[in-house]
Amino acid sequence: MNDKGTEMLCHMLGEERAREVREAWTKLSPDFASLVTNFLAGEIWARPNLDLRTRSLVTIAALAALGRPNGLRLNIEMALNNGATREEIGETLLQMAPYAGFPACWEGLLIADEVFKSRGGGPKA
Amino acid sequence: MNDKGTEMLCHMLGEERAREVREAWTKLSPDFASLVTNFLAGEIWARPNLDLRTRSLVTIAALAALGRPNGLRLNIEMALNNGATREEIGETLLQMAPYAGFPACWEGLLIADEVFKSRGGGPKA
Amino acid sequence: MNDKGTEMLCHMLGEERAREVREAWTKLSPDFASLVTNFLAGEIWARPNLDLRTRSLVTIAALAALGRPNGLRLNIEMALNNGATREEIGETLLQMAPYAGFPACWEGLLIADEVFKSRGGGPKA
Amino acid sequence: MNDKGTEMLCHMLGEERAREVREAWTKLSPDFASLVTNFLAGEIWARPNLDLRTRSLVTIAALAALGRPNGLRLNIEMALNNGATREEIGETLLQMAPYAGFPACWEGLLIADEVFKSRGGGPKA
Amino acid sequence: MNDKGTEMLCHMLGEERAREVREAWTKLSPDFASLVTNFLAGEIWARPNLDLRTRSLVTIAALAALGRPNGLRLNIEMALNNGATREEIGETLLQMAPYAGFPACWEGLLIADEVFKSRGGGPKA
Amino acid sequence: MNDKGTEMLCHMLGEERAREVREAWTKLSPDFASLVTNFLAGEIWARPNLDLRTRSLVTIAALAALGRPNGLRLNIEMALNNGATREEIGETLLQMAPYAGFPACWEGLLIADEVFKSRGGGPKA
Repeated sequence: MNDKGTEMLCHMLGEERAREVREAWTKLSPDFASLVTNFLAGEIWARPNLDLRTRSLVTIAALAALGRPNGLRLNIEMALNNGATREEIGETLLQMAPYAGFPACWEGLLIADEVFKSRGGGPKA
Repeated sequence: MNDKGTEMLCHMLGEERAREVREAWTKLSPDFASLVTNFLAGEIWARPNLDLRTRSLVTIAALAALGRPNGLRLNIEMALNNGATREEIGETLLQMAPYAGFPACWEGLLIADEVFKSRGGGPKA
Repeated sequence: MNDKGTEMLCHMLGEERAREVREAWTKLSPDFASLVTNFLAGEIWARPNLDLRTRSLVTIAALAALGRPNGLRLNIEMALNNGATREEIGETLLQMAPYAGFPACWEGLLIADEVFKSRGGGPKA
Repeated sequence: MNDKGTEMLCHMLGEERAREVREAWTKLSPDFASLVTNFLAGEIWARPNLDLRTRSLVTIAALAALGRPNGLRLNIEMALNNGATREEIGETLLQMAPYAGFPACWEGLLIADEVFKSRGGGPKA
Repeated sequence: MNDKGTEMLCHMLGEERAREVREAWTKLSPDFASLVTNFLAGEIWARPNLDLRTRSLVTIAALAALGRPNGLRLNIEMALNNGATREEIGETLLQMAPYAGFPACWEGLLIADEVFKSRGGGPKA
Repeated sequence: MNDKGTEMLCHMLGEERAREVREAWTKLSPDFASLVTNFLAGEIWARPNLDLRTRSLVTIAALAALGRPNGLRLNIEMALNNGATREEIGETLLQMAPYAGFPACWEGLLIADEVFKSRGGGPKA
């Protein structure tokens, strides 16, 4: 077991949500779960040169542009734990309107809205 | 004429390069040149909620993921003027390897390398 | 407020549906709502050189190719108000089969079918 | 009527499922149904140079990369009838993680899981 | 040999250019050449419900959005023979700025510019 | 150093070409070179469940669909070393015509043709 990857996931998702997500991945495909944990969380997200908040925002930009709903939802959750505000996440998605098209931005905002609502609290950009 | 857009382009590209780029767009399509200057530079890039350096990095992420070589090249140039380091630009592209695929990362690194070389100076991530 | 954008949306969606859509965008993100209304509807859709029916069809083609379900649904609604027939919308989607792949065409036809059914009436291509 | 296309669909989906799928396509668009049957099933899938199992796997790879859920679901069904095992389908999707991004792989695994569950039986990769 | 496809290619490209393009496809892959001629040109482009000019413009929109330079170049050539003006082609590409992103529009305008220049004559949108 | 990754690259590219490619990646970004070698070559390509020939073909399919020219070129080279014939590579690309669009297939065939020509010898599909 790669402790660095598990720790990173807990850090970015909280212990309970990290366990939930990893269990879902493991049911789906144990090999996928271990590649995500060991390589993606343990090696890529642990890299230097970019703080976690910026790393989250660039990932959100790419996933909104590519149209990957599940990965985008999870990365919006992680971004909030990594110190990005709702305004910054909303603004990253707005920046996608002229670069990936307004419809890609719209799809991203709908997913961000779901995540924000599930967490309750104040308004967003 | 939208002064805000022209000013923003000069700020992000330097006066000489901004003039060069705008002239190329104007020759290509005067309407495209004015939409880019007035809307994209003057309205979108002038928005609050995200500093210019982060805005550059999220844009680079999206363009590497989507595979748009000309837009990516220009945004890497602007990112350097917006305060992003070569390390941060390289790291943003590396983050694309697991999110948009290693080949998308590779294409992006080749373009970043061209820009960095044309500016001379030290190594990158 | 940009009257041209609001008028254009009303023209292309009918007053009631335009209000509904704008309210949903405003709840999601007031800034997105105003960019869509002022720039996308008020500036881009108001441009010359292409009639609204053709503009709708080229937009439908792009959104089917890119796989943007919400934007595609709305643009199919607008296309009908812009004078495109069900046959022309269906044919535009069929043209995507060899250019963006049969599965992209299929996803588009499913969305067109939903819109057509919600409006009742006759058959389509 | 193109008998080769109908036969090919029956061969790859079973008679009952082939009829069901063709009826859904015909309701959606008779022209789409006939293009899929005659050209896609009857001409492309009947080509030499690649056995049906490999042809299924390369198609699954492309559709997972492009994010086309309906086409992917159907091709996973067909792959199982074309002799691909659950392990091989799962592995093809895992191979997409570094080439199209982990989130594209995840979306594909979720769809494969639905198909596998609807068929009952043992585990997958 | 499918005469309808060959005729359609000649109609849309002129005899000389059609021969040149077909010879290049045949050298590349005889099977690709025959699928393009018989299915794409002979069946799809020969379909009713959309005039050739509109069919060209929706195809240009999709190929600019997807980033396919060779197919886009050829379709811009064909669009001019199918009755689309330079203004309409330029406007179709501008419409892509908010729907597929400004960088996709830029790439498309660069290719249109090459085609227009190779034909000489007046200005474009 | 990960010997498994280096060995795998040598196995799939030949020693000389593997060294050449790794040196180019290292110059571009030492971190990219090591992620490709250790993770992509050493972990992903070393996985079970899919033979190297099939793994190459599904990768070629995805990269042609996504439009990644450098990754596609390299994977066509590796596919030949992994036991895929020119006919099988050409057929995989033809299968992309109806699934990712004829223009994506065309771009892929052009790249395959370059690789085949650089190796000399007989015809392809």
